[in-house]
Amino acid sequence: MHSELRSRTEVAERARAIIREVPDFPTPGVLFRDITPLLASPALFAQVIEEMQRPFAAMSVTHVLGIESRGFLFGVPIAQALFVPFIPARKPGKLPGATIDERFDLEYGTDSLSMHTDALVVGDRVLIVDDVLATGGTAAAALRLVQRAQAQVVGLSVLSELTILNGRAALGATLVDALVQY
Amino acid sequence: MHSELRSRTEVAERARAIIREVPDFPTPGVLFRDITPLLASPALFAQVIEEMQRPFAAMSVTHVLGIESRGFLFGVPIAQALFVPFIPARKPGKLPGATIDERFDLEYGTDSLSMHTDALVVGDRVLIVDDVLATGGTAAAALRLVQRAQAQVVGLSVLSELTILNGRAALGATLVDALVQY
Repeated sequence: MHSELRSRTEVAERARAIIREVPDFPTPGVLFRDITPLLASPALFAQVIEEMQRPFAAMSVTHVLGIESRGFLFGVPIAQALFVPFIPARKPGKLPGATIDERFDLEYGTDSLSMHTDALVVGDRVLIVDDVLATGGTAAAALRLVQRAQAQVVGLSVLSELTILNGRAALGATLVDALVQY
Repeated sequence: MHSELRSRTEVAERARAIIREVPDFPTPGVLFRDITPLLASPALFAQVIEEMQRPFAAMSVTHVLGIESRGFLFGVPIAQALFVPFIPARKPGKLPGATIDERFDLEYGTDSLSMHTDALVVGDRVLIVDDVLATGGTAAAALRLVQRAQAQVVGLSVLSELTILNGRAALGATLVDALVQY
């Protein structure tokens, strides 16, 4: 680490302060949380990654699944920190191999998520990573991808959670960790 | 590092061996290089990141710009290794702040790349990162984004280069490093 150790609470408060709120993006009525200022702060970003993986560090995670594309930004360094394979869950038509696909509803529209069929096998223990938990639609689709591969979801790690949208309700008993809650 | 140190040549050969070639993806006649097996190999992935940043490590890089979305997979850990801010160059309509945009031709179609206007200032020294250098259209658009912000491009680091497409010709005098060449 390039700076002194900080408590989880302090890292969370610094992250909350640096995330920029942009009203009416991408559509009217949506308050968008812009993480680019966090990406521009390497010391804080490294501390955020440390805190996002910490709750799962002793849970025998075998794979990190990151959701395209902001989930890649957090998922890749978390996979590195846990020293496990990184699996990209991508938009349809982006992965070249055989895929399994799951549709889901967004806050603003519908979409699908694809994963390579051979990415996981029975017994794998998967941590799902994304930037934000909103309605839970995207995360629930990722959960179904893992379950269809007969692997186990250890949990979901997100930078922030919009608690008013109650995304956890879409995820059953899944362990969810959010560093910042709105 | 979780495994013994390896030479650049050895890392490059291991990377070349693990990248999966998929013919006729995403369109007929295109030979796609699938990096997902590399992402699934944490030791080799860490060594690849080390080699992708090494040629630029003593060049006073102040920012890494990663191109959505496979450039995020390499750009984020390279920015961490260099301990500098990461800037995402995204598809149009994805960044919430004021942006500058550049159109470019793809191997298969056309597209645009956007960067936040306030991401860079005069004097910044930027390393551009992507997974592959093909015709150079995407990289040239990223180069123009940096130049329009009046910052300087230190170089382009890619995992692989399709030399037959002569992408370097689109990049002028830009220093290009490719770990694997086809």
